[in-house]
Amino acid sequence: MNEFDLISRYFNWGKSVELGVGDDCALVFFNKNTKLATTVDTLIKGVHFPEDTSAQDIAYKSLAVSLSDLAAMGATPLYFTLALTLPSVDKRWLKNFSESLKILAKQYNISLIGGDTSKGSLSITINATGIIEKPRALLRSGAQVGDSVFVSNTLGDAALAWQQIQNHKTPSTALLKQFNRPDPQIKLAQLLLGVANSCIDISDGLQQDLSHILSRSKIGANINLMTLPLSTEVAQYITDTQDWCVVLSGGDDYELCFTVPDTRINSVKTIEKNLCIKLTKVGVITKEKGLRIKGLNKTCKSYKHF
Amino acid sequence: MNEFDLISRYFNWGKSVELGVGDDCALVFFNKNTKLATTVDTLIKGVHFPEDTSAQDIAYKSLAVSLSDLAAMGATPLYFTLALTLPSVDKRWLKNFSESLKILAKQYNISLIGGDTSKGSLSITINATGIIEKPRALLRSGAQVGDSVFVSNTLGDAALAWQQIQNHKTPSTALLKQFNRPDPQIKLAQLLLGVANSCIDISDGLQQDLSHILSRSKIGANINLMTLPLSTEVAQYITDTQDWCVVLSGGDDYELCFTVPDTRINSVKTIEKNLCIKLTKVGVITKEKGLRIKGLNKTCKSYKHF
Repeated sequence: MNEFDLISRYFNWGKSVELGVGDDCALVFFNKNTKLATTVDTLIKGVHFPEDTSAQDIAYKSLAVSLSDLAAMGATPLYFTLALTLPSVDKRWLKNFSESLKILAKQYNISLIGGDTSKGSLSITINATGIIEKPRALLRSGAQVGDSVFVSNTLGDAALAWQQIQNHKTPSTALLKQFNRPDPQIKLAQLLLGVANSCIDISDGLQQDLSHILSRSKIGANINLMTLPLSTEVAQYITDTQDWCVVLSGGDDYELCFTVPDTRINSVKTIEKNLCIKLTKVGVITKEKGLRIKGLNKTCKSYKHF
Repeated sequence: MNEFDLISRYFNWGKSVELGVGDDCALVFFNKNTKLATTVDTLIKGVHFPEDTSAQDIAYKSLAVSLSDLAAMGATPLYFTLALTLPSVDKRWLKNFSESLKILAKQYNISLIGGDTSKGSLSITINATGIIEKPRALLRSGAQVGDSVFVSNTLGDAALAWQQIQNHKTPSTALLKQFNRPDPQIKLAQLLLGVANSCIDISDGLQQDLSHILSRSKIGANINLMTLPLSTEVAQYITDTQDWCVVLSGGDDYELCFTVPDTRINSVKTIEKNLCIKLTKVGVITKEKGLRIKGLNKTCKSYKHF
């Protein structure tokens, strides 16, 4: 059973909100033009980050993955709570953790408003809330036939770093940066409000996350491997191994995947220029359901939470 | 270092909200008369509940303790998120857990809006949000010299159950009910808005939780052991052992401790009658700082999270 089956089977009974379990964030409606987007993520030592990860990197990533969920909805970060489970009180670790968290929180203008600490194996749960003051949020469910599928920056860097770590190799600084300190695409997402028809952040890999857009929008997509944006290192790795799965299902990218109708493609080009960010068209939305990946001659297993 | 030192030392840098780290809930201001109260709590197997606790009881208590924090502020429950860490997918356990959670959520009209599941040692983090539509919330900081100190129902039942479990005895049904299925005092709290000057829920024991009111309100209190409301079982235990610490610092009561000025004592009597609840005066607020407990001739160690 994967996480999505588990949630939809046992916990899909939220009702009195605009959008409950099943998108990057839940949306709570306050008035016509004000919605709160809220998201929760847990990071566990040895599962989501290697045991020797620094306190600074753990703090950064814990908040960054929640900010990335807010970004996926086009929300402006407001506040978060922190539930921290620690094996013991290590003052140096706590100082490093809290300082790093504070720096990232300041950068994205999000306030720590409450928390809970418990004794146990190291785990960090962050519940982050943002605000959307436009009539529409970015949802997974809005993709339309004919939309172009875009992704931001490059894919597969974090997954390649994680693979190298597991094989006792030391990843390059650039790959490690993507793995430990992904940039949440908050600015990009806010500019995509009113431009993109649908959006998701790529946490479990493009294949699985784009499939969430497809199933929620009840449409399909063709994408082309040759168009996927890759860093030099990931491109070299693929040349050597032909292992596209690191890009398609490795996860941990925290880039955005979004779909845009032809009439608004020019806006994407303007955003790309203004933010100095790479936005690459990787495919199109089709009436025929399912995801077809041109150039892929094997199956990539998607990340399973259990 | 206790939890409170840890939080105030490392995580007390939230700024842009009305009330950040340091009360039962954080308050976020939306407009003059609308505030959101938000709280997060983690329950860990073996720390917060015995290993053989049923899935139903774990679910109940996980949500009830968060509802109790909302009650302490006088908030009406709105929605919550669930971060669930599980060692494996046990369908029967999940069914029992989710059904029990759903029943309690329905009872208090709170919606599950989002979640995250991870693989690891069993732990449950709930972030609950409520709304306060009156100008003032119930805070720890509002107690005034001369206020009467009240507590709801009886104290020490859950702590006595926990002590018996640790000594391999089987607690009575009544004690176990208080330990596994405490009633969050949502209704009481809402009626106390405008009546009580300050309020807290008793999760760490009366001694520690009343002390939070005293330090935040910069005043003191005299309480009298002989006035503390006890169930027959706890009264018998104290007669046998003279161990008042089970009542003063055992924790897990989830009753409310609140302070009321003389001018509004009649309202307390009306609430008591209307809700069929026991509300007992246990002491008074004094100008002299600190907590003095008449009749106590030993020191009770407060619950420490680490």
